[in-house]
Amino acid sequence: MNKEQLVKLLEDVKKGGVEVDAAVKQIASLPFADIGFARVDKHRHIRCGFPEVIFCQGKAVDHVVEIFRELASTGHNVLATRASEEMFAAIERTGEFPAARYEPLGRTITLKQQTESEPLGRITVITAGTADIPVAMEAVTTAEILGQNVELICDVGVAGLHRLLDKVELLQSSNVVIAIAGMEGALASVVGGLVSCPVIAVPTSVGYGTSFGGVTALLAMLNSCSSGVSVVNIDNGFSAAYNASIINSMIEEKN
Amino acid sequence: MNKEQLVKLLEDVKKGGVEVDAAVKQIASLPFADIGFARVDKHRHIRCGFPEVIFCQGKAVDHVVEIFRELASTGHNVLATRASEEMFAAIERTGEFPAARYEPLGRTITLKQQTESEPLGRITVITAGTADIPVAMEAVTTAEILGQNVELICDVGVAGLHRLLDKVELLQSSNVVIAIAGMEGALASVVGGLVSCPVIAVPTSVGYGTSFGGVTALLAMLNSCSSGVSVVNIDNGFSAAYNASIINSMIEEKN
Amino acid sequence: MNKEQLVKLLEDVKKGGVEVDAAVKQIASLPFADIGFARVDKHRHIRCGFPEVIFCQGKAVDHVVEIFRELASTGHNVLATRASEEMFAAIERTGEFPAARYEPLGRTITLKQQTESEPLGRITVITAGTADIPVAMEAVTTAEILGQNVELICDVGVAGLHRLLDKVELLQSSNVVIAIAGMEGALASVVGGLVSCPVIAVPTSVGYGTSFGGVTALLAMLNSCSSGVSVVNIDNGFSAAYNASIINSMIEEKN
Amino acid sequence: MNKEQLVKLLEDVKKGGVEVDAAVKQIASLPFADIGFARVDKHRHIRCGFPEVIFCQGKAVDHVVEIFRELASTGHNVLATRASEEMFAAIERTGEFPAARYEPLGRTITLKQQTESEPLGRITVITAGTADIPVAMEAVTTAEILGQNVELICDVGVAGLHRLLDKVELLQSSNVVIAIAGMEGALASVVGGLVSCPVIAVPTSVGYGTSFGGVTALLAMLNSCSSGVSVVNIDNGFSAAYNASIINSMIEEKN
Amino acid sequence: MNKEQLVKLLEDVKKGGVEVDAAVKQIASLPFADIGFARVDKHRHIRCGFPEVIFCQGKAVDHVVEIFRELASTGHNVLATRASEEMFAAIERTGEFPAARYEPLGRTITLKQQTESEPLGRITVITAGTADIPVAMEAVTTAEILGQNVELICDVGVAGLHRLLDKVELLQSSNVVIAIAGMEGALASVVGGLVSCPVIAVPTSVGYGTSFGGVTALLAMLNSCSSGVSVVNIDNGFSAAYNASIINSMIEEKN
Amino acid sequence: MNKEQLVKLLEDVKKGGVEVDAAVKQIASLPFADIGFARVDKHRHIRCGFPEVIFCQGKAVDHVVEIFRELASTGHNVLATRASEEMFAAIERTGEFPAARYEPLGRTITLKQQTESEPLGRITVITAGTADIPVAMEAVTTAEILGQNVELICDVGVAGLHRLLDKVELLQSSNVVIAIAGMEGALASVVGGLVSCPVIAVPTSVGYGTSFGGVTALLAMLNSCSSGVSVVNIDNGFSAAYNASIINSMIEEKN
Amino acid sequence: MNKEQLVKLLEDVKKGGVEVDAAVKQIASLPFADIGFARVDKHRHIRCGFPEVIFCQGKAVDHVVEIFRELASTGHNVLATRASEEMFAAIERTGEFPAARYEPLGRTITLKQQTESEPLGRITVITAGTADIPVAMEAVTTAEILGQNVELICDVGVAGLHRLLDKVELLQSSNVVIAIAGMEGALASVVGGLVSCPVIAVPTSVGYGTSFGGVTALLAMLNSCSSGVSVVNIDNGFSAAYNASIINSMIEEKN
Amino acid sequence: MNKEQLVKLLEDVKKGGVEVDAAVKQIASLPFADIGFARVDKHRHIRCGFPEVIFCQGKAVDHVVEIFRELASTGHNVLATRASEEMFAAIERTGEFPAARYEPLGRTITLKQQTESEPLGRITVITAGTADIPVAMEAVTTAEILGQNVELICDVGVAGLHRLLDKVELLQSSNVVIAIAGMEGALASVVGGLVSCPVIAVPTSVGYGTSFGGVTALLAMLNSCSSGVSVVNIDNGFSAAYNASIINSMIEEKN
Repeated sequence: MNKEQLVKLLEDVKKGGVEVDAAVKQIASLPFADIGFARVDKHRHIRCGFPEVIFCQGKAVDHVVEIFRELASTGHNVLATRASEEMFAAIERTGEFPAARYEPLGRTITLKQQTESEPLGRITVITAGTADIPVAMEAVTTAEILGQNVELICDVGVAGLHRLLDKVELLQSSNVVIAIAGMEGALASVVGGLVSCPVIAVPTSVGYGTSFGGVTALLAMLNSCSSGVSVVNIDNGFSAAYNASIINSMIEEKN
Repeated sequence: MNKEQLVKLLEDVKKGGVEVDAAVKQIASLPFADIGFARVDKHRHIRCGFPEVIFCQGKAVDHVVEIFRELASTGHNVLATRASEEMFAAIERTGEFPAARYEPLGRTITLKQQTESEPLGRITVITAGTADIPVAMEAVTTAEILGQNVELICDVGVAGLHRLLDKVELLQSSNVVIAIAGMEGALASVVGGLVSCPVIAVPTSVGYGTSFGGVTALLAMLNSCSSGVSVVNIDNGFSAAYNASIINSMIEEKN
Repeated sequence: MNKEQLVKLLEDVKKGGVEVDAAVKQIASLPFADIGFARVDKHRHIRCGFPEVIFCQGKAVDHVVEIFRELASTGHNVLATRASEEMFAAIERTGEFPAARYEPLGRTITLKQQTESEPLGRITVITAGTADIPVAMEAVTTAEILGQNVELICDVGVAGLHRLLDKVELLQSSNVVIAIAGMEGALASVVGGLVSCPVIAVPTSVGYGTSFGGVTALLAMLNSCSSGVSVVNIDNGFSAAYNASIINSMIEEKN
Repeated sequence: MNKEQLVKLLEDVKKGGVEVDAAVKQIASLPFADIGFARVDKHRHIRCGFPEVIFCQGKAVDHVVEIFRELASTGHNVLATRASEEMFAAIERTGEFPAARYEPLGRTITLKQQTESEPLGRITVITAGTADIPVAMEAVTTAEILGQNVELICDVGVAGLHRLLDKVELLQSSNVVIAIAGMEGALASVVGGLVSCPVIAVPTSVGYGTSFGGVTALLAMLNSCSSGVSVVNIDNGFSAAYNASIINSMIEEKN
Repeated sequence: MNKEQLVKLLEDVKKGGVEVDAAVKQIASLPFADIGFARVDKHRHIRCGFPEVIFCQGKAVDHVVEIFRELASTGHNVLATRASEEMFAAIERTGEFPAARYEPLGRTITLKQQTESEPLGRITVITAGTADIPVAMEAVTTAEILGQNVELICDVGVAGLHRLLDKVELLQSSNVVIAIAGMEGALASVVGGLVSCPVIAVPTSVGYGTSFGGVTALLAMLNSCSSGVSVVNIDNGFSAAYNASIINSMIEEKN
Repeated sequence: MNKEQLVKLLEDVKKGGVEVDAAVKQIASLPFADIGFARVDKHRHIRCGFPEVIFCQGKAVDHVVEIFRELASTGHNVLATRASEEMFAAIERTGEFPAARYEPLGRTITLKQQTESEPLGRITVITAGTADIPVAMEAVTTAEILGQNVELICDVGVAGLHRLLDKVELLQSSNVVIAIAGMEGALASVVGGLVSCPVIAVPTSVGYGTSFGGVTALLAMLNSCSSGVSVVNIDNGFSAAYNASIINSMIEEKN
Repeated sequence: MNKEQLVKLLEDVKKGGVEVDAAVKQIASLPFADIGFARVDKHRHIRCGFPEVIFCQGKAVDHVVEIFRELASTGHNVLATRASEEMFAAIERTGEFPAARYEPLGRTITLKQQTESEPLGRITVITAGTADIPVAMEAVTTAEILGQNVELICDVGVAGLHRLLDKVELLQSSNVVIAIAGMEGALASVVGGLVSCPVIAVPTSVGYGTSFGGVTALLAMLNSCSSGVSVVNIDNGFSAAYNASIINSMIEEKN
Repeated sequence: MNKEQLVKLLEDVKKGGVEVDAAVKQIASLPFADIGFARVDKHRHIRCGFPEVIFCQGKAVDHVVEIFRELASTGHNVLATRASEEMFAAIERTGEFPAARYEPLGRTITLKQQTESEPLGRITVITAGTADIPVAMEAVTTAEILGQNVELICDVGVAGLHRLLDKVELLQSSNVVIAIAGMEGALASVVGGLVSCPVIAVPTSVGYGTSFGGVTALLAMLNSCSSGVSVVNIDNGFSAAYNASIINSMIEEKN
């Protein structure tokens, strides 16, 4: 309920078209969102064409199917992350979503129901090693279902610097770079020093011993000596892509 | 040296206008940046009007003065972070930089030498408490010297939710929100759920006991249940503002 | 043995009705509980109608059955937490406890043998997400077997603040709120700022990466900027409900 | 603005006594608290006679004085925690608050301006050692300014168990026990096993080596084998007392 | 080779009874132990009747059998800790050690081949809960095969203090107490305050959440406020019993 | 009050020599220690000639003086650890304890008022480096005031193994060895492999970087591959000496 | 492309032998390695006879086979570490690499295709226990395929110091010593004090409780009181051997 | 005493030239080093011209002077690390060591008394930032006093990659590279990918927030994706230089 609607309601009360009791109920029972907060969600939805994302981990298969169905019914695209093959099989068994797709590496289920807007700018996803690819695939799938133009470059870790330098031009022409690395996570710093666009760093749990399941890469990325780097949680390709998509969507044209 | 310049040089060699020895020297002595990497720096400079930032912590006062002088000589704006009053006094004593300013809360030295471009969009900096203000001031000063339009809102921690909700409209009309909080760092999640623009979260070392100098807030922010949140290092107002400025500069107009 | 009993005993000795040897033995062999400590347990039992709780984790199935039988023989209600389905099956196989029930999400076995006192006040259990429900069910079952009036609200995490705000009235009319959340655990702080009753926060191991099995939520809750929040161990729905039940039982009527 | 006031306003609009524009402004400009959240604060205030607490740590002396003055002007009692002697001296210098008192061990400033309600029940604060007394004093002063009946017992650590056992009767007749201990924090578990009322455990930073500034005591208390124990942040005597006061105020009479 | 033997050897050389070459070889080829270090082992063996212990964890089954055979061949008692049932089955299959026994809770294999010396004094092993019994059984079996007089008391955790107090006399008449506890590990402090003999504390990995696999109990025990407590590694019942056995063997009679 | 005294009292009651009221008062007012627990203290005192130790850290100077005076009045020896020079000066200023001594390295105050029993056996204290000497001095002074025969060997770290091996005979003839080391704490393992008596390991905060204030040495000592090693808290020379003294006192003669 | 080649190219341009376009392409398209970085790889290859190592952990079996084939096609030796038996089986199934070998303890696949240079000097690999052997085997196999002369000594932990001292001469005649140990990792310090060559320490995840998967050994090794010790990641036998091989290859003859 | 000397001594005994008593004393009193271990030290000394290094931190000024004098008396070069200006002043005050020098950044005292051997090869020390220079100076001074040829390159952090790439040739012609970096420590990985010689990485405590005093850089370096990297303790420039010097001394000529 925005200001205009409130004016209208009060005028209706004044005119007698709406009873006081009915108006009280309408105003009092409004979710707070109606007076401001929920506009966020609608705003986001209108702009991004995306209602909500299903984080499947720890959810029962039945619940995932149910939530998937509810979200799909809005007619928007649907994204489910950290989904098991079993969950996708259950969705397939319903026979209701023939267009649903499963990406096994990144473990996402997607259902494309809308023609997204023409992609603007490019998000570049790069990984230090091949073992980081599952996280990269989660990022790529997320960005795509959010209507983004995304490009993936794998295995350009800093131990073989020339392979990364080979891609500098591509990196420099991106609107956002998502840098994905495990072990010592140095990729974020090196890329951060090479580009002028925002770099979103994703530490991965790739490594062993003192990599501590990605903590070392996370700490390294938080301490990056390059200035344009921000960080998301370990293995969180989805969050990086979501952030990148917000940013990319807000940029009409890069100078 | 870009492709065109290289073609030109080689044609000059062919025509005899440039000697082989001179050309060899020119090509061989080129910083690698000239063949790609340093373009980043120039590009950044041209676009942002900003050469480099002096991180003063752990530097000798003399070195800070020297670096400050060198950077100032380029005619660009100068920013020095984590600067002590003693450092600023030394810069003042030189008598060379009458326009230099010290911001004691955020501990920054700035020297404005250029009329920055007309600000586009707005970066909103919010803090959970009053003790977070020093970090906020570092962010504000950084964003301003980078030519941004920035607004600061203090003390809107989630314990008094209505104070935050009062500012929802302002938050929702921002291009980037920088959310600064210590203790349990819940502000980032709550704000992330209220806006559709990117939220850059800055954990602060405010708190005691198990706040562990900001680690608790950092972890909370990395685990935010809201999707559009990325994180920088503890107390790193500069990095948050730098990231926000890159993003804001890349957006011409918000939809 | 209280003071009166001691006076009586000594008078018996004086009168010769009790031999010195017998009196010595009686005084010396008294469990300390008889002189004070064990009264606690009886006191607790009389007031709460509850003898002891079986923490099944790490116990052999046989031992669980045996302890269950012993406790059931007192005629009081019985609660076993962290119980496996196998343990419940073993209890069922005895055929002795047809009224025993298993709650598979919270993994509790309960045996109701007493009509509990009329519930006073209400304990409200709320969770940030659906993955926190198992911990919530342990809390709900515990509170119920302890004779409490308990209400469960799920999935009101702070990322969608309006859903939580919708329940403010319910929260404000509770005697105790148990706030259950994983990830960044911000729910406790937000709820703590909305109610005037005690909030018992339960961090859960829900999350990934730097959630560190619930440590992040725990730290966030310990650092809550809201004043009325105390915390129990990770995933410890039982302890939260036990604490809440003690408090709720001690309140006759809320002002 | 409650339901009755809203009905009244709308009826006034209907009757023409209030213009639509004025009513719109009144409804739209209401802090959300007026429609629900701020009632918490008022409710708390009415019940506890207490508006807000000043956490002085990290605040400028001037700010503390200013906030103190503002809170004192409401006529309610005032509590400032983690206050330095310098802060109290500044408050004294104003000459405005002759009744203000400084408690140097717990570092609190209090200003009693109201006759609190007759105390109900008792909060007992116990410490393991003498070095825990500063934290205990913060708790005691907080409880007292919140109008509670509080008793302090010091130095009853478990190494000399008989000293603790001597106080069992006193502990058992309390409405809430605040157990304060550093080092291994065993006091909370032992007390938790002796009483039937809620125990709020406060780990302190007392100790050395692997006490890790209170983390060991905190962990021990979170893992208490006794059931009725909840925990607050390290050295947070204020929070323990605040929680205890809420609970004690909600209990009219102990059975 | 001690001083006397060296004098003897050199005199033999002088007398010509031993050739220079032979003497050189004898002196040069001596294991350093022969000049001092290895005496330790022999000394230990003579005094304790025990050569070496097989730590089975991480060893191949074949290797365990082989080492077992070699140690058994010395005629001494044999102890293998952290042994799997599979390892014991392999030892049984050899048919060589009909007297070998497997203790499944503590996971030890023992082979008694010697009549140990008459036990002196008593080692008392106590546990906080029933889940600590496996660690206790490792301690008991170790102490017994080392010829000690050992008594086990289970489930005397501090939450039910009277059960522990009931055993005070038994504890006070011990030469060494081994206190085994997980969770908050408070047992060690409480026992340490009740007895005058050395207390060896064994933290166990019993617990969940912030018990961190025994780290909490370990830290609590290291910070014990009682003076006579030393600590061994988590779940290390063997080490505690080994230490206790050394001490007990060195005490002829308790005063 | 022991059994004999209780029998006597009751017989006096029976004979009429003691009134019932007086007897009740005498029995009821006994500290629980008199019925069991405090016997420990007396027992300890009789055997060790030592009442209690003052841990000065965090105590006010006045309190230390007062406790010192009270303990000295018992006529026993007095030990105060972690004492500042200021504390000793205050004790000296009283003029009451001319025999009090301050050991500045280990920061102990001692007052010898009793001729201790003839020393039995020997406690050997060894340190890895010279920086560990303060901790060693705390241990030495503690052992001496407890009437022990103690010998100190410094700077025998494992980097120069021959210096340690030189002392093997001395180590092997000890009843207890206290091994004190910072950095990697390897000394405990090496010594543990050389002697047959108990080794009490004291990690020290000596080191830098990843020594983490003694945590590295602590962990190393807890994981010692030698069997007869137990560990106390970081820098806790007192506790090691107290443990060693208990053990040494219980051994009449070493075999 | 080195300076001479660049001069030559430019002279060809000048002479007209090479077109400007072709020269531009050649210079511009050069991988940076051609102008400097990649020479490293070739240099390394020529000197060590080794192109690249396959880290198999986390890679798909198919990918491992494919990379193996590609590397084998260069004619150089091939090394794959952390390889499963399944991976080796897949390589065998291709029938292309009859000379490939699997070492099951260290989990390496090797393919020897070149006669390595005559070994210079010796790398000695020593382990504290038998459980460290898998890490040692990874080191040994790595060093061998890199053409080194390597010797393995097992089970010389410091608890039985004489066994280590027995090998001093062998250690002292090595060019590099790789010291492998879990638990408290003291071996590195002791060996570091015995030899004058570099010691590369490898902490292993052998141990339990507070060994924390090798962290304790790692910390101990980083804090070694011996000077010539450097450290690699936990269980990283490969890295230690690679470092040792570089060093050994650079030494022609030991003085 | 080596084998030949032992044969000689025994032959002298046989011939009567040496008395048995004297021979016994000579053999028995030999430090174990004389029979093997101490040869290491002599060997090291002969080869490196260096007896021992004084680690001053935590040592008394007097002790430092005394040890300095003793070491200087051998005629060798002397190195004292972590020395305060006060310590150097005390050494100067003795007037005995006019050639002693203090390097204030790296805090070393050196006394050159020997003409070192002609330097072979080169050790290159590089730092990521200017704040790492103190650690670098400790390394440089150490290497120089050990007679090495060392070159220092500062401020080549990976954020400005071209500055590092500019030095590739210099790095590639080194025998050993010492890479010093704080913050995220990425320098070690990048350099490790550019050179074929061993890289010794030194994490520094430079940084703030989650740099955790150098732990982040340490972890990053231990997880380096480049193969030829080993690591020393945080800020330990001395250890890196000592390791590098051993290696460089063992290499006669680089291929």
